[in-house]
Amino acid sequence: MDRDELKGFLEKIRNGQMSIDEGISLLKGLQYLDVGCAKIDTHREARVGYPEVIFCPGKTTEQLAAIVQAMLERQSNILATRASQEMYDTVRKICPEASYHPLARTITIKKKDTASADTYIAIVTAGTSDLPVAEEAAVTAEFYGNRVERIVDVGVAGIHRLFHNLDGIRGAKVVIAVAGMEGALPSIIGGLVDKPVIAVPTSVGYGASFNGLAALLTMLNSCASGVCVVNIDNGFGAGYLASMINRLK
Amino acid sequence: MDRDELKGFLEKIRNGQMSIDEGISLLKGLQYLDVGCAKIDTHREARVGYPEVIFCPGKTTEQLAAIVQAMLERQSNILATRASQEMYDTVRKICPEASYHPLARTITIKKKDTASADTYIAIVTAGTSDLPVAEEAAVTAEFYGNRVERIVDVGVAGIHRLFHNLDGIRGAKVVIAVAGMEGALPSIIGGLVDKPVIAVPTSVGYGASFNGLAALLTMLNSCASGVCVVNIDNGFGAGYLASMINRLK
Amino acid sequence: MDRDELKGFLEKIRNGQMSIDEGISLLKGLQYLDVGCAKIDTHREARVGYPEVIFCPGKTTEQLAAIVQAMLERQSNILATRASQEMYDTVRKICPEASYHPLARTITIKKKDTASADTYIAIVTAGTSDLPVAEEAAVTAEFYGNRVERIVDVGVAGIHRLFHNLDGIRGAKVVIAVAGMEGALPSIIGGLVDKPVIAVPTSVGYGASFNGLAALLTMLNSCASGVCVVNIDNGFGAGYLASMINRLK
Amino acid sequence: MDRDELKGFLEKIRNGQMSIDEGISLLKGLQYLDVGCAKIDTHREARVGYPEVIFCPGKTTEQLAAIVQAMLERQSNILATRASQEMYDTVRKICPEASYHPLARTITIKKKDTASADTYIAIVTAGTSDLPVAEEAAVTAEFYGNRVERIVDVGVAGIHRLFHNLDGIRGAKVVIAVAGMEGALPSIIGGLVDKPVIAVPTSVGYGASFNGLAALLTMLNSCASGVCVVNIDNGFGAGYLASMINRLK
Amino acid sequence: MDRDELKGFLEKIRNGQMSIDEGISLLKGLQYLDVGCAKIDTHREARVGYPEVIFCPGKTTEQLAAIVQAMLERQSNILATRASQEMYDTVRKICPEASYHPLARTITIKKKDTASADTYIAIVTAGTSDLPVAEEAAVTAEFYGNRVERIVDVGVAGIHRLFHNLDGIRGAKVVIAVAGMEGALPSIIGGLVDKPVIAVPTSVGYGASFNGLAALLTMLNSCASGVCVVNIDNGFGAGYLASMINRLK
Amino acid sequence: MDRDELKGFLEKIRNGQMSIDEGISLLKGLQYLDVGCAKIDTHREARVGYPEVIFCPGKTTEQLAAIVQAMLERQSNILATRASQEMYDTVRKICPEASYHPLARTITIKKKDTASADTYIAIVTAGTSDLPVAEEAAVTAEFYGNRVERIVDVGVAGIHRLFHNLDGIRGAKVVIAVAGMEGALPSIIGGLVDKPVIAVPTSVGYGASFNGLAALLTMLNSCASGVCVVNIDNGFGAGYLASMINRLK
Amino acid sequence: MDRDELKGFLEKIRNGQMSIDEGISLLKGLQYLDVGCAKIDTHREARVGYPEVIFCPGKTTEQLAAIVQAMLERQSNILATRASQEMYDTVRKICPEASYHPLARTITIKKKDTASADTYIAIVTAGTSDLPVAEEAAVTAEFYGNRVERIVDVGVAGIHRLFHNLDGIRGAKVVIAVAGMEGALPSIIGGLVDKPVIAVPTSVGYGASFNGLAALLTMLNSCASGVCVVNIDNGFGAGYLASMINRLK
Amino acid sequence: MDRDELKGFLEKIRNGQMSIDEGISLLKGLQYLDVGCAKIDTHREARVGYPEVIFCPGKTTEQLAAIVQAMLERQSNILATRASQEMYDTVRKICPEASYHPLARTITIKKKDTASADTYIAIVTAGTSDLPVAEEAAVTAEFYGNRVERIVDVGVAGIHRLFHNLDGIRGAKVVIAVAGMEGALPSIIGGLVDKPVIAVPTSVGYGASFNGLAALLTMLNSCASGVCVVNIDNGFGAGYLASMINRLK
Repeated sequence: MDRDELKGFLEKIRNGQMSIDEGISLLKGLQYLDVGCAKIDTHREARVGYPEVIFCPGKTTEQLAAIVQAMLERQSNILATRASQEMYDTVRKICPEASYHPLARTITIKKKDTASADTYIAIVTAGTSDLPVAEEAAVTAEFYGNRVERIVDVGVAGIHRLFHNLDGIRGAKVVIAVAGMEGALPSIIGGLVDKPVIAVPTSVGYGASFNGLAALLTMLNSCASGVCVVNIDNGFGAGYLASMINRLK
Repeated sequence: MDRDELKGFLEKIRNGQMSIDEGISLLKGLQYLDVGCAKIDTHREARVGYPEVIFCPGKTTEQLAAIVQAMLERQSNILATRASQEMYDTVRKICPEASYHPLARTITIKKKDTASADTYIAIVTAGTSDLPVAEEAAVTAEFYGNRVERIVDVGVAGIHRLFHNLDGIRGAKVVIAVAGMEGALPSIIGGLVDKPVIAVPTSVGYGASFNGLAALLTMLNSCASGVCVVNIDNGFGAGYLASMINRLK
Repeated sequence: MDRDELKGFLEKIRNGQMSIDEGISLLKGLQYLDVGCAKIDTHREARVGYPEVIFCPGKTTEQLAAIVQAMLERQSNILATRASQEMYDTVRKICPEASYHPLARTITIKKKDTASADTYIAIVTAGTSDLPVAEEAAVTAEFYGNRVERIVDVGVAGIHRLFHNLDGIRGAKVVIAVAGMEGALPSIIGGLVDKPVIAVPTSVGYGASFNGLAALLTMLNSCASGVCVVNIDNGFGAGYLASMINRLK
Repeated sequence: MDRDELKGFLEKIRNGQMSIDEGISLLKGLQYLDVGCAKIDTHREARVGYPEVIFCPGKTTEQLAAIVQAMLERQSNILATRASQEMYDTVRKICPEASYHPLARTITIKKKDTASADTYIAIVTAGTSDLPVAEEAAVTAEFYGNRVERIVDVGVAGIHRLFHNLDGIRGAKVVIAVAGMEGALPSIIGGLVDKPVIAVPTSVGYGASFNGLAALLTMLNSCASGVCVVNIDNGFGAGYLASMINRLK
Repeated sequence: MDRDELKGFLEKIRNGQMSIDEGISLLKGLQYLDVGCAKIDTHREARVGYPEVIFCPGKTTEQLAAIVQAMLERQSNILATRASQEMYDTVRKICPEASYHPLARTITIKKKDTASADTYIAIVTAGTSDLPVAEEAAVTAEFYGNRVERIVDVGVAGIHRLFHNLDGIRGAKVVIAVAGMEGALPSIIGGLVDKPVIAVPTSVGYGASFNGLAALLTMLNSCASGVCVVNIDNGFGAGYLASMINRLK
Repeated sequence: MDRDELKGFLEKIRNGQMSIDEGISLLKGLQYLDVGCAKIDTHREARVGYPEVIFCPGKTTEQLAAIVQAMLERQSNILATRASQEMYDTVRKICPEASYHPLARTITIKKKDTASADTYIAIVTAGTSDLPVAEEAAVTAEFYGNRVERIVDVGVAGIHRLFHNLDGIRGAKVVIAVAGMEGALPSIIGGLVDKPVIAVPTSVGYGASFNGLAALLTMLNSCASGVCVVNIDNGFGAGYLASMINRLK
Repeated sequence: MDRDELKGFLEKIRNGQMSIDEGISLLKGLQYLDVGCAKIDTHREARVGYPEVIFCPGKTTEQLAAIVQAMLERQSNILATRASQEMYDTVRKICPEASYHPLARTITIKKKDTASADTYIAIVTAGTSDLPVAEEAAVTAEFYGNRVERIVDVGVAGIHRLFHNLDGIRGAKVVIAVAGMEGALPSIIGGLVDKPVIAVPTSVGYGASFNGLAALLTMLNSCASGVCVVNIDNGFGAGYLASMINRLK
Repeated sequence: MDRDELKGFLEKIRNGQMSIDEGISLLKGLQYLDVGCAKIDTHREARVGYPEVIFCPGKTTEQLAAIVQAMLERQSNILATRASQEMYDTVRKICPEASYHPLARTITIKKKDTASADTYIAIVTAGTSDLPVAEEAAVTAEFYGNRVERIVDVGVAGIHRLFHNLDGIRGAKVVIAVAGMEGALPSIIGGLVDKPVIAVPTSVGYGASFNGLAALLTMLNSCASGVCVVNIDNGFGAGYLASMINRLK
């Protein structure tokens, strides 16, 4: 609340337009839904523009069901990431219209429409093995009402494949570049386009890739500018941020 | 033995109040119980205020059974951590009153009562997935006669959930803050309360969380003061230390 | 060149509108300026929207002077980062109008104006010691024609300082959050605002901060969404990316 | 503010006992002092029981002077850590009564008395080279009104030295154990006393000590219970936490 | 295309020897085959001398089948690395003449002959457990038309075994040295022969071998010259590079 | 061969006492047995005093069988480490008298007696969970003809257990100290006895033990002297070295 | 010595063509020059084709002088790497014709000519700051009689600079690619040329470059084939290996 | 005290042969000398066979002087490691007969003779740059009355230098092998001799040697048996342990 809102609020109290109990409730204000094992952040959409997302690992199916049930009662759209098939089976019992994206390991439920953006997000992968992470990003971005252009398998070992797809990349408002192994793709793209590049290192590789550490360091040290990085295999985070940027006015 | 006790002991020897054999035994003094595969530290309770605790990983069920059996014969209260269901089944055959806490993976046997403390311990978790570690802390603290207040899922992504629960945290004598991923919760709490905060990093997360290393480093570098750290996923250690502090006079 | 441009180009060759030598030159096309020790990417502005930037470490003053000289001859705006006072003295001899920002260790030369953006970038620091990195970001963003709002020393040890400055942060189109030690600030901000947050870990700290590694991992593992990360102490990279996002239509 | 305070506050507004401007000011409430390069957390003492502390590295002497000046105007006690002799010379010009502790690299200014605790804190070091860190802890604890017992150079290479000093350690309400190299001292003490042990790894050592990492890991993995850990060389943090525990009722 | 080729090409356009559509196609030129989940780099052989290789991990059997099918249609020789038995079963259905090398986990299909080199490659292993990596290198080198001499189990614990096989090593044009654990073998060989040595660290070992990191560091720090290193367990990369060197004129 | 032996050898050649073919054979001299997948170092016993040992991981049962068969034909004593039950079943078919030590995961075959040493080796463990590594050391030492004294579960959490067993430790000629978690035991013993201490870190622990890294670093940084370290979990290496020292004249 | 040489040698002994003392000396045979602080490997040239090289760090100027003096007496060509100006001043006193290459920190002395190779080595750098390492490689390669083509500052931030220089790279027999920061250059080149690529990571960069670790990992994980890696900043090693490959017949 | 000693002691008390005050003193027994900043372990010689050694880093010259003074008063032999020239100048004022070994950075004072051992210790270095660490080991071993054979610069790049010096190595009772860079020397020696090998990694090297980490890991993973490891650059520790082994009966 800024100064004027504060003033208005206090005047309402003074005038009796608002009861003291209402005032207490409003001051306590920012809210959430307590389901025992979790406190669902029902205020998040108002605050940051997006409803809370369910990160599934480490949760029992009972806990997942309780959270989904509570959110459904509030008519929320639901996005659950890193969900197993078994978790989906549980959710589908509660909500038959739930969709599962096996490659992206993601459950989505749409209770209300999301406004579409005019511009689009390009999601580029270095290799075929990076697809699960890229799909998590794509499903996330689409869930939030964005159009996505997928450009697959254009890694630096055959860089002409990238050049042949530059138009699709340059046309986007923001680019997600997904790569494992040496993770050079985002640097190359950052040197070629005038749009923000969100780099996603993947754990694809072996030996000294150290489960994605090599790609992560490569991306953090990009000598091209305009590149930022999210966690290893964090397709969701990239899709979420890209949506935020794509929808900026 | 301090100076007076030493003097008293030696005078008893001189006077013949204590035989030389008794003296040898007493001098050898600090004691333990040898069960072959282990030397149970039966003196620990006298020394540090708490009986020995059984850390289960790497022990065979036979070894576990031998240790439990020997402790039961001394009427010890028993706490066994990181115990599998199969280990519990073994223990229950020896001692049907043993309890198992599946979320906390903990076996407890109470042979004698523990005095209760007046004050309580707040155990706060950043997310639902941190619950197993928090429960290990809670079961441990309760085993040692402490009252525990659980405050679940108040991580920094929706920090108003924390603010709404500050009273419960501020009322405690000591706080355990459990968090994975970026592990920022203990810093926030440390900046808000005037009580010691025991930070427990968990291995919840993926990629650059490096199995809890990220949360551990965050907590060690807390810019808020009054925060100390235990090992990753070490709910037991946090519960034990919190009990020690909660029971300080 | 897209299909139509290619067609046009080839038709010009066939018609003789373009000589073969011109064609060779055009095909060789994308260009740069070779000054011996460096190949200045004069094409970058056309390609990614920003001219090449000079990263000073590891360059001799002679090399720096040669590069600046060559860029001045092309009337480029010049940004040189991580420049010492001695480097600035060298540059000033070539170009007396060059400015030096000692806290940001940055040299700027403006030969032509940059269009201003309507929206602004908020640059937030956790502590006073993070200022040099934040200033590098601010000087960079301002060099590219952005308005910057600086919000200093609002780290999580006294989080109310952040809440009192939320309006300034929420009003920005994009936020840069700079923090060392445990690096929790970007996560907190990410949970409070609906704008992209560019997290910059700094090497402020000691011991297990491992020269910024702790803050870097914290930021990569942020449980709030909408946060991306650049290299440790990379104020320039954050300012550049923020400019790119702030100027998106 | 709890429910009753909120109610009282709102009733005062309604009754006109408090003006709306006063209400705004109170609601904005949690406060700090803005000195440009820093926002001094003047509310911290009310919130966590201790005034803000100045961490000197990365600050210019001008910035330090500005912060000290502002705090002096509020008659705060001042503790500045990791301060160089040159920083002290600057502070002494502003405040001639300031003290400098060269071994601990700490500046203290006492404007008002601190109530003394009845119990004391034992600070134990493994070696002579650990003294600077231990002294930082001791100066901090004494600054906050605690009595400190120093027990120096009782590391595990000659463990009888520790046993001869056990009484002094066991008499304390809380123990700080400072050790570099292999860092085993806190584990040993943790196995011998019934008081919380705050372990401080130091960067004393060479080679595979990796600047204190070895001692840090040792302490985190302590097989004795009742041990918690702070950052490498973080004498201040240990002294602060020990004070907090020592003053618990 | 060098200057002369460019000139020739443009003259053909001017003369009408080449249609504009052909010109566009040629300029777009560098090519690949898009199979949806992958863009097969069909130009690679022309560019780097070897056709694209299939890295199997992270690919579904459907994806693998699609890629193999497309390459077979172009009559390519096929090498697929890190292939499971199940993957081979899939490939064999498409192409019954495919061979599987279980130790090397490699599938090969030969559609056209490869010219043989006169010289040979020596592949030397430190131990029997390094054989799978060595075989991957050997199968790769043979696939590309090289003769391979295998020298097994001559690690430094019994270094006379190496000396007794020096003639076979010295006769080669290039040497691949495969070792896990402490990885000293390539250094020794590098000090004894006048041929390039390609060092391959393996993940054979335990504890502080850290899955091959120890061997990798050993090899990078070789005090003998003429040694270069590929990724941990990267038999394919070593075989490929050795083939390249062996076939140099 | 020293100078005299060389002289004698050459004189035999000159005198014709030795044929030139014999000379060649002798000069080629140091020998091994080639079984295809391995070169068994049959000369090792002459050279370093002990026959070759079989490290089982990464070997197929066929390879293991071939090696054992070949060694049996030479009437060697055989020690195979890290052997699975299945590997033992294979060996037992070839050699029914083979013994398996399941805790130590070790196969032994004794074809000829080993002279016994008069002195003994003390093997001390910090906890029960360290037993598998300690047993590997014990079986190894006994295989080489040493007497072993086992002292189990005397870690620093209850250090009086160690003091009660000091006589058994001090009576040994060399001590093996096995510990996981924080790994402090060898330092303590090194400060108490005047015999070489071989420290064996184990992977017992969790979280920041990083699979034994914490214990390894602790031991390398021991502030007590007379301590050396072998690889994590390397019971065999410790037993071998201890045997070597115990048998020194 | 192969079989025939051995036979010839022994026959000479039998015939008395060689005295027994000569035989002893020859059998002792492989030789070196002992100068007290060092054993100069005078046999290396015969064995691996190149004379010993002097690695200067950690050597006193006296030791360096002694080694140079001894090599000069044998008329060796001399290459000393990582030499300071002060070291060069010492060497110049002994040998006025010695040359110093300040950028490469290298001393060279040519006593005899080296045959030139027909083919050449391309040395490519990503940035201007990588020049010292590249020059060390170039001086080394030239010292061994190779022609070197330098291609500077063609890193991936402006990748068209690389494409414009591809002819020079493709014409070489072997390529050295030198890059710091994210180290992507060798992967790009590896995907474009059919020659071996020796990748040299440099310590150019900051923050998460971790002194070259990021570039090292990038290069080890190169998804292009035909790339091998040497130690960080190891220009000498790359130049030496490139010479070896360039001179292969 | 063993059982008989305990019995004797207690009988003396009973008989009045020993006063109670004497008994208290004896029971308090294990002793040290307190000099304020340090507790000199005067009992160490009785307990582990060697007097306490002074580790200089982190100590002020005043502290060093106080410790030396106190030890001189007890007529102790003194060994101070990692001492600077300035520290030596301080010590020489107190004790003019003190010797300084600049290469080994060691101060020694001999007040009483040490019995000489008949056997000797071989100290072998890989390179000239490893000499400071080797000399620290040598000075330490000689200080404790051992004969030392130095064998310098026989690293694996020219392994024949090692073979020519094998007799000197094999004649020793225990071997210290000192190596930086890739650290392979101890493995080679371990495969060639039948004596314990103490491996000392040094920080000689650059880049991926990571200040000795590479050599340390190499040595810990030695595939030769009979090798143990001490800390990086820990010449003192190696010399101490070698002395202990060399003097074993």
